[in-house]
Amino acid sequence: MTIDTSPPRGMRDLLPLEVELRDAAMSRILGVYRTHGFRRVETPALESLKLLMGGGGGENEKLIFKILKRGEKLATSSGDGAAEELADLGLRFDLTVPLARYYAHHHARLPHPLRAIQIGPVWRAERPQRGRYRQFTQCDIDILGVESEVAEVELILATAEALLALGLMDLTVRINDRRLLVSVAERCGFAPERFESVFIGLDKLDKIGLDGVRAELQAAGHHPDAVATLVTLLGEPALGKGQVDDVLRALPVDVDGAPAAALRTVIRAVGEASAGRFPLVFDPTLVRGMSYYTGQIFEIGYKDHPSSIAGGGRYDGMIGRILGRDVPACGFSIGFERIVAILQEQGGAVAEPARRLALIFDGARDDLTEVMASAQRLRAEGYLVSVESRSKRLRKQLDDLAAHGVGLYLVLGETDVRPIGSAVGAS
Amino acid sequence: MTIDTSPPRGMRDLLPLEVELRDAAMSRILGVYRTHGFRRVETPALESLKLLMGGGGGENEKLIFKILKRGEKLATSSGDGAAEELADLGLRFDLTVPLARYYAHHHARLPHPLRAIQIGPVWRAERPQRGRYRQFTQCDIDILGVESEVAEVELILATAEALLALGLMDLTVRINDRRLLVSVAERCGFAPERFESVFIGLDKLDKIGLDGVRAELQAAGHHPDAVATLVTLLGEPALGKGQVDDVLRALPVDVDGAPAAALRTVIRAVGEASAGRFPLVFDPTLVRGMSYYTGQIFEIGYKDHPSSIAGGGRYDGMIGRILGRDVPACGFSIGFERIVAILQEQGGAVAEPARRLALIFDGARDDLTEVMASAQRLRAEGYLVSVESRSKRLRKQLDDLAAHGVGLYLVLGETDVRPIGSAVGAS
Repeated sequence: MTIDTSPPRGMRDLLPLEVELRDAAMSRILGVYRTHGFRRVETPALESLKLLMGGGGGENEKLIFKILKRGEKLATSSGDGAAEELADLGLRFDLTVPLARYYAHHHARLPHPLRAIQIGPVWRAERPQRGRYRQFTQCDIDILGVESEVAEVELILATAEALLALGLMDLTVRINDRRLLVSVAERCGFAPERFESVFIGLDKLDKIGLDGVRAELQAAGHHPDAVATLVTLLGEPALGKGQVDDVLRALPVDVDGAPAAALRTVIRAVGEASAGRFPLVFDPTLVRGMSYYTGQIFEIGYKDHPSSIAGGGRYDGMIGRILGRDVPACGFSIGFERIVAILQEQGGAVAEPARRLALIFDGARDDLTEVMASAQRLRAEGYLVSVESRSKRLRKQLDDLAAHGVGLYLVLGETDVRPIGSAVGAS
Repeated sequence: MTIDTSPPRGMRDLLPLEVELRDAAMSRILGVYRTHGFRRVETPALESLKLLMGGGGGENEKLIFKILKRGEKLATSSGDGAAEELADLGLRFDLTVPLARYYAHHHARLPHPLRAIQIGPVWRAERPQRGRYRQFTQCDIDILGVESEVAEVELILATAEALLALGLMDLTVRINDRRLLVSVAERCGFAPERFESVFIGLDKLDKIGLDGVRAELQAAGHHPDAVATLVTLLGEPALGKGQVDDVLRALPVDVDGAPAAALRTVIRAVGEASAGRFPLVFDPTLVRGMSYYTGQIFEIGYKDHPSSIAGGGRYDGMIGRILGRDVPACGFSIGFERIVAILQEQGGAVAEPARRLALIFDGARDDLTEVMASAQRLRAEGYLVSVESRSKRLRKQLDDLAAHGVGLYLVLGETDVRPIGSAVGAS
């Protein structure tokens, strides 16, 4: 059989050391989430295309991997190649749309409010490129059923603490409110039906600067007066001050309104509870791409990394579209693949080499029963023991083991467990 | 939007308590596997259909969920509805075929030998029925690159110990060797090209009895003399004796040959290392369904459960078909969904109710900063704290929390953490 042994295009196989780094990171994140009362839930990888293409996913809806109908169902399709005729299921492209369906279906049997952890693969048929994969892991927490800002506070605290627990100390959390963005767009005089386009332009401020945003909004055909008003506003030095009331006063918004009050509440509660371990900054230019956000939005930056490593916000409307009655909802998603890339750049500690022990035996001579008895003794002492038949070149064998994260060895019949690094001279 | 909120047919959503039971079981299993030097590896959910339909999967190949080609690739398909034209990827139906591809592709960068743990979902478009799902979790260990019986011994020990660690104490491990089955079939006079059909009939001995097997083999058109010889042999009381040499002598096989010697070696080594915690029984009627097995095969039964809860064996030929050179391979797979069902029947302990604490506050009155400060203090003491806004009926709220596995509560402003069960009288 001649067969290409690569994984499918844009997808990855993971070697043991890679999986172990990911598992260790995931375990830390989960540990923090659990202390905040979040609970894991799971949905299948497949969902109906009707749900997936129902409007919540934006561009992602174009990237769905669709499942071919089977047997009779396929035969009764018209067979003219139209994808809708050939498929009725697809692989999920995120964990939020499935969560909304899950909650709509099971809410009576779920804790109320639901604090959900979702961890799992999602699939998008994007053009493969460096750091972007067609199967990747998402790691979300969501609180469903809480209207008050306690949801935002818990999500921000839990997410930031999870990242700190991974050793990512130099975090900045930025926060804004979609409702303030709408106020600003209104006061600048943009056409209400084109606000999303204004926000998409504004979202690029970090990357293309003030002149870039002006050019982009003009090119998009927005009213020149509105563009000029917004650009002048964005140039205000007060916006960079950071104190929430200073910034609010520099904006054309109601400084006593609900969004402003909610911002103060969240910033104060998070600030006290985090005890200065990370800054929470009001950034009135923060947008977040998804159009489904309805209230506060937030993201987390790490050092000078250009992309955020976590993002989220309130999306009170989404579940209502499925369930038929509104359920307040708010979520925060860690960019797990980015986190893993950062941990790997930082040298991603090998998992427990000091517990991994190779028990070397002579396959031609040693009695298997004795080998196993020694292995079991060492396991009872807490070692992770692999039983290795001695190769002709022991030194090379030990080096290979060390390269795969095994830190210790013992030759059957000898008494001392030795670190592999110090085995120089073994032959 | 009117939308069916059920998961796709034959697939499941998991509630928090279900996920927690599964996670706890998986964590125990993984812990044991790791003490035996096994390491997690991962492959994508999707594989090329060419690989999946390459011959290793038997009946499962008919149950593949296929992925519709996208855009241009779909347009250039003939569009006559032939599945081969419309799809080139599929969801994996097991973890063994992907592991063989993975090893063929990465072997130079992998530990040698590779002791792989694979845990993950697989998909089969089977007719849904009780206890059988279209997406389910497999949990496999495999040793690639070890020719000697140390592989079989380690796999049996690690798997049985993992099940014992779950509290499944009443295990029986059964072992046989495909090569002995072949000897028996030869000596009985069956046609060599029809041995698989003989084994399929024999495999049903437990369910349909000796007369059933006779009828089945006769109906399948095997030579009456061969069937009669086999049935007489199966009636031998010595087969049930259990002592490996007694049983071997009752069979028409070479009692001094390699398979017999390997059986003695494995049974002795496992017996010593397991120190009597589970029996390992030579069962010459054990078959295992897969045709790819080439040597020893094994399975584990629990109490009087009709189905085995784990199964595996040696499959030395599979990787060679992809890689072009033979690599000895042996694996053992736990039936994770069956294990979970047994643990649930046994009342599946709720995860850590004694650490789960609800901090009850008054949403209308309490200051969020104070609420969070209390929550953080309790978290630092080791509790898993959910912050719960007090509802009008506290008793009902507490009962609901208890039903979801929360064991403790504290009303903000009071000093004592109390068990929810004893909260009788709260209003």
